[in-house]
Amino acid sequence: MEPKDSALSVQPGVEVPPPPRIRRKRRRLSLKEYVDGVLGGDRTVLAQAITVVESLRSADTALGQDILEACLPHTGRSIRVGITGPPGAGKSTLIEALGTYLTKERGQKVAVLAVDPTSKLSHGSILGDKTRMEALATDPNAFIRPSPSGGSLGGVARRTRETLLLCEAAGYGSVIVETVGVGQSETTVRAMVDTFLLLGLPGAGDELQGIKRGIIELTDLIAINKADGPDRARADLARHQFESALHLFPPTVTGWIPRVVTCSARTRDGVPRLWSVVEEHHQHLRNSGMLEAMRREQVKQWMEDMLHHEMAARFAKHPVVRERLPGIERDVLEGRLSSFRAVGMLLDLYYEGKS
Amino acid sequence: MEPKDSALSVQPGVEVPPPPRIRRKRRRLSLKEYVDGVLGGDRTVLAQAITVVESLRSADTALGQDILEACLPHTGRSIRVGITGPPGAGKSTLIEALGTYLTKERGQKVAVLAVDPTSKLSHGSILGDKTRMEALATDPNAFIRPSPSGGSLGGVARRTRETLLLCEAAGYGSVIVETVGVGQSETTVRAMVDTFLLLGLPGAGDELQGIKRGIIELTDLIAINKADGPDRARADLARHQFESALHLFPPTVTGWIPRVVTCSARTRDGVPRLWSVVEEHHQHLRNSGMLEAMRREQVKQWMEDMLHHEMAARFAKHPVVRERLPGIERDVLEGRLSSFRAVGMLLDLYYEGKS
Repeated sequence: MEPKDSALSVQPGVEVPPPPRIRRKRRRLSLKEYVDGVLGGDRTVLAQAITVVESLRSADTALGQDILEACLPHTGRSIRVGITGPPGAGKSTLIEALGTYLTKERGQKVAVLAVDPTSKLSHGSILGDKTRMEALATDPNAFIRPSPSGGSLGGVARRTRETLLLCEAAGYGSVIVETVGVGQSETTVRAMVDTFLLLGLPGAGDELQGIKRGIIELTDLIAINKADGPDRARADLARHQFESALHLFPPTVTGWIPRVVTCSARTRDGVPRLWSVVEEHHQHLRNSGMLEAMRREQVKQWMEDMLHHEMAARFAKHPVVRERLPGIERDVLEGRLSSFRAVGMLLDLYYEGKS
Repeated sequence: MEPKDSALSVQPGVEVPPPPRIRRKRRRLSLKEYVDGVLGGDRTVLAQAITVVESLRSADTALGQDILEACLPHTGRSIRVGITGPPGAGKSTLIEALGTYLTKERGQKVAVLAVDPTSKLSHGSILGDKTRMEALATDPNAFIRPSPSGGSLGGVARRTRETLLLCEAAGYGSVIVETVGVGQSETTVRAMVDTFLLLGLPGAGDELQGIKRGIIELTDLIAINKADGPDRARADLARHQFESALHLFPPTVTGWIPRVVTCSARTRDGVPRLWSVVEEHHQHLRNSGMLEAMRREQVKQWMEDMLHHEMAARFAKHPVVRERLPGIERDVLEGRLSSFRAVGMLLDLYYEGKS
């Protein structure tokens, strides 16, 4: 049996963090134990390593980064897939169907992550994830990790990105990252995956109102879910409509023309076909040399975003800026001050302490 | 006759800056003369005021901002329209047709601006604009101002935004901002206008390859140009296809469902109808209270962008950052350093001078 401790109790498939607000001693392994465990595919140690990397405690920062750096040479070998879709499109059911297909029929290991900036550290959301993906949660070849909680979208994304790398080092051949569609989370997930999948519903009219503007043009693949029973014909119609619509769009920068498929997460019809399109896209990226280029670009872009966010956060926290910003902003919005002069004033306040 | 001087020679409709690289004395009016001239609708003074506001000379900065601030209370009353489209869609011809319709048939004053970060200060591009819009260039109710030249897209956009405000203060009821489709210029123009128009071509297939991904979802209105002669039927087909496609998209945040029209900038067929949709959209924004809200949001967003750009520029210029960044970036891309630790190192170098 895998080791258990009260602070990091682990169930197959789902790592359940402890309930919040209970002060407890955190036991830590040595760096070598974490790295050996992760590289050996030990899911308990993987879960514990993720907890260290996710930790917001400054005492964990150096250890987390050491684990990550030791694992880095063993990353990059998975197919990274992002999944989004409006509420009710059946994202969890589809991920469960896809994941089970990959583990049972393809003999692969699959990791499922989420980027949810609204997630709170509580049993509620964890049990939610577990309930939503019952079969996958008890599958020894699946690893489900709920969204890290706390912090900004950028912070949540940073930790999800690092968790993705640890999962790759642990030998997971596919990593699925789910977005909850809050704020800019689609763009954030798009920036950490190879293939971005939008899940839609039959009907394609009012049912799609939940999709935010701009999302369709981020996608490599649209899957119309619930193509079963009486909805089959409507799903085919929706697929046809999307195909026509996408035909009007330019291809992606990699030269890929986005595809549309139908599937039923419930009956599992079309799920293998869906995955074959994901693989085809991955093949396209690899053959064109774009996979490597895209991932390098993602890392560079992400570093830049992190730097800018941190600088903006320091600016916003500056005491003189905090004091003067609201008044300056009001003057601009009410037409008493040009926005250009306002920017100059704020920069002077920040960099030179002028007032 | 309006006053002329060799440095700021002005022709009706087009202000021609002097040829570059000739050292010359710049004559400046007083603040009051600029403001009175602009508010009185004097196009020569308007052009001169724009030159001051656009100027990159530090001696002009304070005067430019004073002019702008004095004019601010008289801004905000125009319909601000952005126009984009792939090369060959006929943007200039359409702007000329629209502008002439507004001045001749509606008795309005129209200003035409451009955001072109590649524009160089030379007679070439100015004469280009003049040649492209021959009728409008000599129309006393039209004011054509080429893109400010020099500087980043952000700097060009800042000056175009301020020029737009001066044009409003001078009584121009419609301001059309053309984007050349370079870099992020569509997003930049979208962020300074009320209505964003995409010009397309009949056929809607290969002909639209020039449209960048993401643009369609920024638009409030698509106009299929060249709907004349034998292409009429193809234009109608393209309109129909776009209508079906847009039906799959969610409405804009303001609740507006993007529209598609056909027109011929050459024969002027459909141009009044196109403008009536622009007006309908403006009415929709005003009635819903979204016009004011959107413009306020644009100003706030733009201030934030300016601040972040300036901070990023200072970071990039920091000598220690400049020295170390390439090596750190290489270590990250080659998997020797985690991107998170790299970001921390760079921030330490910048803020604390650590190395």
